[in-house]
Amino acid sequence: MISVVILGAGNVATHLYKTFNKTDDIRVNQWFSRKISSIKSYKNEVDITDDLTQLKEADLYFIAVSDDAISNLSSKLPFENRLVVHTSGTVNIHDLDKKNRRGVFYPLQTFSKDASLDFANVPICIEAIDRSDRKILKSLAQAIGSNSHKVNTEQRKALHLAAVFVNNFTNQMYRIAHEITEAEGVEFDILKPLILETAKKIQSLSPYMAQTGPAKRNDKKTIHKHLELLKNEQHKAIYELMTASIQKTQGVATRPTPNSKKNN
Amino acid sequence: MISVVILGAGNVATHLYKTFNKTDDIRVNQWFSRKISSIKSYKNEVDITDDLTQLKEADLYFIAVSDDAISNLSSKLPFENRLVVHTSGTVNIHDLDKKNRRGVFYPLQTFSKDASLDFANVPICIEAIDRSDRKILKSLAQAIGSNSHKVNTEQRKALHLAAVFVNNFTNQMYRIAHEITEAEGVEFDILKPLILETAKKIQSLSPYMAQTGPAKRNDKKTIHKHLELLKNEQHKAIYELMTASIQKTQGVATRPTPNSKKNN
Repeated sequence: MISVVILGAGNVATHLYKTFNKTDDIRVNQWFSRKISSIKSYKNEVDITDDLTQLKEADLYFIAVSDDAISNLSSKLPFENRLVVHTSGTVNIHDLDKKNRRGVFYPLQTFSKDASLDFANVPICIEAIDRSDRKILKSLAQAIGSNSHKVNTEQRKALHLAAVFVNNFTNQMYRIAHEITEAEGVEFDILKPLILETAKKIQSLSPYMAQTGPAKRNDKKTIHKHLELLKNEQHKAIYELMTASIQKTQGVATRPTPNSKKNN
Repeated sequence: MISVVILGAGNVATHLYKTFNKTDDIRVNQWFSRKISSIKSYKNEVDITDDLTQLKEADLYFIAVSDDAISNLSSKLPFENRLVVHTSGTVNIHDLDKKNRRGVFYPLQTFSKDASLDFANVPICIEAIDRSDRKILKSLAQAIGSNSHKVNTEQRKALHLAAVFVNNFTNQMYRIAHEITEAEGVEFDILKPLILETAKKIQSLSPYMAQTGPAKRNDKKTIHKHLELLKNEQHKAIYELMTASIQKTQGVATRPTPNSKKNN
């Protein structure tokens, strides 16, 4: 049995609380939030507090607050030599106050407060100063059914950055597609199977191998037609930049070719 | 029973052949390719030819060749007043020779020649000059288990363009993430659950509602950190352009704000 205290009331804190709460091997001793109103709906199932001096003892303290607030909160903790971890993708492990043992428990997934989340599909990136603390974090990930990966700070930062590309920027590609189809009065829903298949394809194939389309084929005629269709200047700039990026990756010679072929 | 002849030997032609061949209500009378060697491995199961004058009679002729070759091939067909369709996302229905009845049967999916494909997940965009021909195309889509959507040429072109954003450009986002993680010696595989979840999320939520991350939050500190981490100038330009695009969509005021908050 591992006992934990959670500090924070955002998406990550809430998902961690819910998951820990239903896991046999983990006990949530307490939930802290500066603004007690945001967690008061849980007061019948767990001890809640907004007073740092009242923090209970536990094996592990989770600081799941905004990046800017982590360092400050860690230095205000009224105890020493306990294991304190943050859950951020970008904050340095050394930003945690060194009076306690320090670690990082970074779940790499997109969190919405309302949507339920199965932690079995969430890889956890773990980091700790001491090897024995890393073991505790690994056991905790195991207890909630997650795969854990030992990464250093630079690797965690790279993953956080890469996640912006595969999550936020990809989602914006969906949004642009939504705008393009909507403008012609055609359902965005028609694209949903393609969106799913694109994500599924790279589960077994590298993105390099999975690439298709006019940019890779250097199909200038189709590229030209597409640029003509795009009325939004920003969408046009994105089309041009992404086409150039694909062609660089795929080693496409971008000089004019006499006959560019299409084979889907 | 609908009888068809397939013309072409690329990915779409091959997938259509395989699917039609295993469907009870459809009979493939013949398969034509200019280069007979590319379909000769099928000669024991279907009549193959490279001679247009030998084309058999059928209810429906599928021209599944490169975009540039569709018009020319349609005018070389040695018959009149039969139903001839192409499978392209961008070619005008009127590019088909008007001596025959004309239609479009555009499967909106990413095709790899080797990977098997379940047409139940492939939306078919159909178009025809005559309403009765459109009914035939609809029955055919039904026979292979696909949802069909009646679209006009402009709508089909918009879908084809939108597909480049959600398929090719999204896949390039995965590729850039692969490069970023590889450079730090961390497994790209850690990102795969996030990639799947991002695609699954918009099956029930609009891309606008699904958006999260530093661009949407206008979290300047994280954006700045990310831009510093990116060494590749093209990746940096993509990061900046996509961030601007998200902020425009989400109505983020991009003037400096005193305290930008992270709540992942």
